[in-house]
Amino acid sequence: MNSKIEKLIKLFAKLPRVGSRGGQRIALALLQDKTGRAANLATALLDAAENIAPCSCCGVLTDRGTICEFCRDATRANGQLCVVRDLSDVWTLEKSSVFHGRYHIIGGLLSGANGCLPQDLNIANLSERITNENITEIIFALPNTVEGKTTQHYIISAIGADNVTYSELASGVPLGGELDYIDDGTLTLAFGGRKSL
Amino acid sequence: MNSKIEKLIKLFAKLPRVGSRGGQRIALALLQDKTGRAANLATALLDAAENIAPCSCCGVLTDRGTICEFCRDATRANGQLCVVRDLSDVWTLEKSSVFHGRYHIIGGLLSGANGCLPQDLNIANLSERITNENITEIIFALPNTVEGKTTQHYIISAIGADNVTYSELASGVPLGGELDYIDDGTLTLAFGGRKSL
Repeated sequence: MNSKIEKLIKLFAKLPRVGSRGGQRIALALLQDKTGRAANLATALLDAAENIAPCSCCGVLTDRGTICEFCRDATRANGQLCVVRDLSDVWTLEKSSVFHGRYHIIGGLLSGANGCLPQDLNIANLSERITNENITEIIFALPNTVEGKTTQHYIISAIGADNVTYSELASGVPLGGELDYIDDGTLTLAFGGRKSL
Repeated sequence: MNSKIEKLIKLFAKLPRVGSRGGQRIALALLQDKTGRAANLATALLDAAENIAPCSCCGVLTDRGTICEFCRDATRANGQLCVVRDLSDVWTLEKSSVFHGRYHIIGGLLSGANGCLPQDLNIANLSERITNENITEIIFALPNTVEGKTTQHYIISAIGADNVTYSELASGVPLGGELDYIDDGTLTLAFGGRKSL
């Protein structure tokens, strides 16, 4: 196989959920296309790679050297700060329109297995943000896993602020969830957190 | 969402089997990566888009302005020419090591539904190749569908050469195929083409 095509397939294959067969498909689709999709994609990718960087305040990817749309939006300064793992979580929450405050992306979860240590978390400016932005509530929307809870506890102790309330998303049976498909751990949490009617 | 990221996601989402969620994942993985994968991929893609073109003889993608590895390889001049739809079929056949002649990529199948007409097929130089390369057998390895068979008949009549034999891949039960999973059409073909033992 031609070395340029082979290199391209290998790079595509390493992307999330693509794999070697998918990489072949994508490379062929782009190279056989006569409308210039390959060049368009390459240009857009280079443009984004060069000009996009994390917001210095919250970590949301935005135009390099600027503050992101959430941190700029004064209507979002409602005293609530939602701590999430990465940008895709921000997009998910935004799509649901459930939250109207500001975000803070920590960029990972503490884990011995994948080597994510406290210094890898983007939390250096959290205390500063609490003061500057008059934050009254920090809402943790981290994955409901051991790593998520560990990270949450670590961040609370690292902030050490008494003038904010901390909250986390409720655990329980998802909407439309049939009981026989729910795992034991979730059932235990749902029973423990039952609400009186 | 940032317009540069949005544009990138849309371009990725249009690639085969990626979709909007996959596009988000891929764009995020590339933009959050600190090892320069995004720039690498963009450079490789631009390089390939600019310097890769179909071989003027058989249609296999190769370095622009050169003849492909198959057409250059004298050991492949065995008088056999395998007609396939696109380059991924060539890769599939090469992986199986079942064929050692030369290829001819026609680039599509005749179909009213997707508007592929006879002039869209890459067959203009087929007669010339038969003469120049002393082709004695043309093997059709096109999809076993109505469009594949239509295209095959059209190409045979378009070539109109009497000094070559034409063949097509055998139809039947695939290796390891259980009869109760085989469709009626395949079973009919397999019965019609039964071999005496």
